[in-house]
Amino acid sequence: MTEDLNNFLESINSALQSEFDTDIRDLIGDLHPADIAVILESLPPDERIRVWDQIPLDLLGEVLTEVNDGVRAYLVEKGDTDLIAHAISTLDIDDIADLVPSLPDDVIRNVLFTSGDHSQAELDAILAYPEDTAGGLMDFDTITIRANIPISVVLRYLRLRGELPDNTDKLFIVNRDGKFTGSIVTTDLLTNDPDTRVRSLADTDPVKFNVNDSDEDVAAAFERYDLVSAPVINDDDELVGRVTIDDVVDVIREQSEHAILAQAGLKDEEDIFAPVIKTTRSRALWLGVNLITALLASWVIGQFESTIEKLVALAVLMPIVASMGGNAGTQTMTLVIRGLATDTIGPHNAWRVLRKEFSVGVLNGVLWAVVTGSIAYLWFGDYQLGLIVGTAMIINLIASAIAGAFIPVFFEKVGIDPALASGVALTTVTDVVGFFAILGLAAVFLF
Amino acid sequence: MTEDLNNFLESINSALQSEFDTDIRDLIGDLHPADIAVILESLPPDERIRVWDQIPLDLLGEVLTEVNDGVRAYLVEKGDTDLIAHAISTLDIDDIADLVPSLPDDVIRNVLFTSGDHSQAELDAILAYPEDTAGGLMDFDTITIRANIPISVVLRYLRLRGELPDNTDKLFIVNRDGKFTGSIVTTDLLTNDPDTRVRSLADTDPVKFNVNDSDEDVAAAFERYDLVSAPVINDDDELVGRVTIDDVVDVIREQSEHAILAQAGLKDEEDIFAPVIKTTRSRALWLGVNLITALLASWVIGQFESTIEKLVALAVLMPIVASMGGNAGTQTMTLVIRGLATDTIGPHNAWRVLRKEFSVGVLNGVLWAVVTGSIAYLWFGDYQLGLIVGTAMIINLIASAIAGAFIPVFFEKVGIDPALASGVALTTVTDVVGFFAILGLAAVFLF
Repeated sequence: MTEDLNNFLESINSALQSEFDTDIRDLIGDLHPADIAVILESLPPDERIRVWDQIPLDLLGEVLTEVNDGVRAYLVEKGDTDLIAHAISTLDIDDIADLVPSLPDDVIRNVLFTSGDHSQAELDAILAYPEDTAGGLMDFDTITIRANIPISVVLRYLRLRGELPDNTDKLFIVNRDGKFTGSIVTTDLLTNDPDTRVRSLADTDPVKFNVNDSDEDVAAAFERYDLVSAPVINDDDELVGRVTIDDVVDVIREQSEHAILAQAGLKDEEDIFAPVIKTTRSRALWLGVNLITALLASWVIGQFESTIEKLVALAVLMPIVASMGGNAGTQTMTLVIRGLATDTIGPHNAWRVLRKEFSVGVLNGVLWAVVTGSIAYLWFGDYQLGLIVGTAMIINLIASAIAGAFIPVFFEKVGIDPALASGVALTTVTDVVGFFAILGLAAVFLF
Repeated sequence: MTEDLNNFLESINSALQSEFDTDIRDLIGDLHPADIAVILESLPPDERIRVWDQIPLDLLGEVLTEVNDGVRAYLVEKGDTDLIAHAISTLDIDDIADLVPSLPDDVIRNVLFTSGDHSQAELDAILAYPEDTAGGLMDFDTITIRANIPISVVLRYLRLRGELPDNTDKLFIVNRDGKFTGSIVTTDLLTNDPDTRVRSLADTDPVKFNVNDSDEDVAAAFERYDLVSAPVINDDDELVGRVTIDDVVDVIREQSEHAILAQAGLKDEEDIFAPVIKTTRSRALWLGVNLITALLASWVIGQFESTIEKLVALAVLMPIVASMGGNAGTQTMTLVIRGLATDTIGPHNAWRVLRKEFSVGVLNGVLWAVVTGSIAYLWFGDYQLGLIVGTAMIINLIASAIAGAFIPVFFEKVGIDPALASGVALTTVTDVVGFFAILGLAAVFLF
C-alpha cells in the first residue's frame, strides 16, 4: 500500500510537470478521498490548488474532511468559495460540524442556505457540544426501534428504509418517551427466528456515553470493549446520537500525534509546507521558552566562574553530568506520562512508582558514577576530580528520577498537559542540578 | 469512566489491605477483562498474583490477552501453570497465536493437548506468519458464501449457524476453487429483497490484504477506508482469514506507544513494576549510548581548554548554543518522523521539506542570534563575545535544521527505526556543532 502510494506520488509529480491538468485528473479520478488527502498534504502550496481543482466534485467534501487542519485552512483560503461550499454541503452533519470552526463566515452562510439536506437545528444541536466530547463526536445516523415488536417487523421496516448507515452494528431501543433502554446487535436479526421479540435479544445495559463525556474516555472505552458503535444520551437518558469506530480511530490517532508533537512544542496537524514566516514564528515561541531554561542553567554555571577558571576540566565534564540526568529523567517521565494516560498510574500507586524509580535512579547513579568518575580520572589524572564527577552523577540521576516521576503528576494535577510541559521542566531541573552538583562540589572540596 | 476506574482502584487497594480475598473477588467479579487488566498492570507484583487468583475462570483468558507483555510474562512465570493453560485454552485461535511467543514450552504443550476446540493445524497456520503481518493479525472467523445464491438462502444458512462472530460487517464470497471473489455487507442482507442474488449486491473489488502485508499497512488502510473487517488472502487468491478493527486499534495504539517510548530508549510494554535490577539493566544500555555521545561533545570542549581558560564566560554560554540547537532540531526531526510514518514525506518531496526547514533554521537562527548575542554582551560587557555567541547560534540552528530533516530520512533508508535512533544522533550533531562553533570562533577571533 505504502509502496503503491509512493509510486503514485511520483506519477503525480510528473503530471504536475506537464502543462495538462487532465493528466492530473486522470490520475486521481479513481482514488479514495483519504489517498487524495495524503497527496494534497505532501504537495507544496502552489501545486495543491492545481490538484484540488481537478478532484471530482462528489469527492471534494470527503477530501476536505480528511486533510489536516493546516492544509484545510489553506484550501479554504485559496480555493474557490463556491466550490468549498458545494464540497461541504455534500457531507454528513457531524462532519460539517467538525469543519465549522475552521471555516470563514461567508462559507458557513453559503453552506447553510444552499443545503437542503441538513437542518439548521441539527447543526446547532451538534455545535452545542465541544469538539472533544461525545456530543461533538456523534452523528445522527441512529436507527431506533421499540422493545416489544418482533424481529419480522424490524426486518420489514429496514427493507422499507433501504441501505443502512456505515458502522450500523447495533439498533437502538427507545421507549415512548424517547429514553434509551438498550440495544440489539444487527447480526442477531439475521440469525434469530423472525418471531422473536426485540426485547428478548436486547442488551439492556450496553456501553453508552453522555453527550459531555470526553473524547478520550470514549476512545478508551471503544478500545477496551471492542466497540463498533455506541449510543450517546443526554442528561435525561434520551438518545441523541451515536459514536462510531471510524471517528474514534481518528481520535486515537490524534491523541498519539498530539503526545509526540507536544513534546517538541509543535502544534497538532501542522502543515509541512506552511509559509516559512508562519512556521518560524510558531516555533520561535518554544525556542524562547527553552532559552529561558537554558539561561537559568547558564546562570548556575556563572556562579562558579572562579572555580572553572582554576580547573577548566570542570567545563569539559559538566555537560556529561547534565546530559545523563536529562536522559535518565526522560525515561522515567515518558513512562509516567504514559501511565497517567492509560490509568495504570494514579493516586493509589503513585508513591510506589516514585519509590521504584528512585531505586533505579540510585542504582544507575552508582553505575554511571563509577564509569564517568573513572573516565574523568584517566582523562585528567586527578582522582579528586573523578570523585567529584561520580558524586555529581549520583546526585543528578537521583534528582532526575524524582523529577521525572513528580513533574508529570504535578502538571496533571494542576490541569496542564503533561506531554507539553514536562520535558522543558525536567531539563531545567536536570541541567540546574547537574551543573550545581559538579561545580558546587568542586568549589567546596577542591579549593 | 476514568473517574470510575480511579475510584475503583482505590477500592481494590483497600480490599488488598484486608485479609479476605473474597473482598477482591466481589470487587472484580463484574468487571470487563480489559478493566481487570488495567488493575493488574497498576498493582505491584506481590499483589498482582493475589488479584489474579480471584479472577473468575471464564475471564482469565481474556485478561491474559489484555495485559501488557511485561505483566503477562510475570503472570505466566509466577501463576499456576494449569490455570494459565486453562485460561489460554478458552481463547480464539488468533489470540492464542499472539501469546505463544511469550509462553514457556510446558504451557504451550499443555494448551495444545488439552484444548479440543482448536486444531494444531490452525495454530500452525497462523504461527507461520510473523506477528506484524496481516497473517499474524488475522482470525479464522470468516463466513463464506457463493455468488450465485439468493439472499434468502444466505439468511437460512445464517439462522442455522446461529450467532455471528464479532465485527462481522461483511460476508466473503469465494468460488468453487476457494478463491476470494468479493464481499457483501451484512446489513445489505437486511435491507434487500430476499430474492436478490448475492452477486448483484457484491463488492467485487473490496480492500483486501495479502497474508504478508505489514500490520502498519493494514492499520493505515483500515484508518483510511473506515473498515470494520477485511479479508486476508494468500498468494493464490484463496481466502485464509480476516482482520478486524479491534485488533487494528491495538496495532494503532502500539505503534503510537512505540513511537513515544522508543524516543526515550524504552522497550514497548514495559511493566511499571518490573524488578528494580531488571529495569536498571534495561535502561542502563540507553544511558551508555548517551554517555558515548556526551563524551564526544566533551572531547570537542576538551580541544579548547586553553580558550576557555582565557575566557570562562565561554563555558557559561556554550550550553545555551548547544541546547537551542537541540530543541530546534527536535522540532524538525519530529515533523519529519511523523511525515515519513504518514507517507506525507517521501522521495518526491524530501528535497522541498529540507529547503523549507533550512529557511526556518536561518530565520530562527538570526532571531535567536540577536537575542542571545545581546544577552551575552549585556551580561559580560564584551561585544566580541556577543558576536561570537550570535554567529555560533546561527550556525547551530542551521545545522540542526539540516540534521533534523536528514537524520530520520537516512535511518528510514537504511532500515533502522527513525523513532529509536534519530534523537541520539541529532543531539550528538547539535552538541558537537554547537560547542565547536562557539569555542572555535572564540579561538580564532578572540585570541
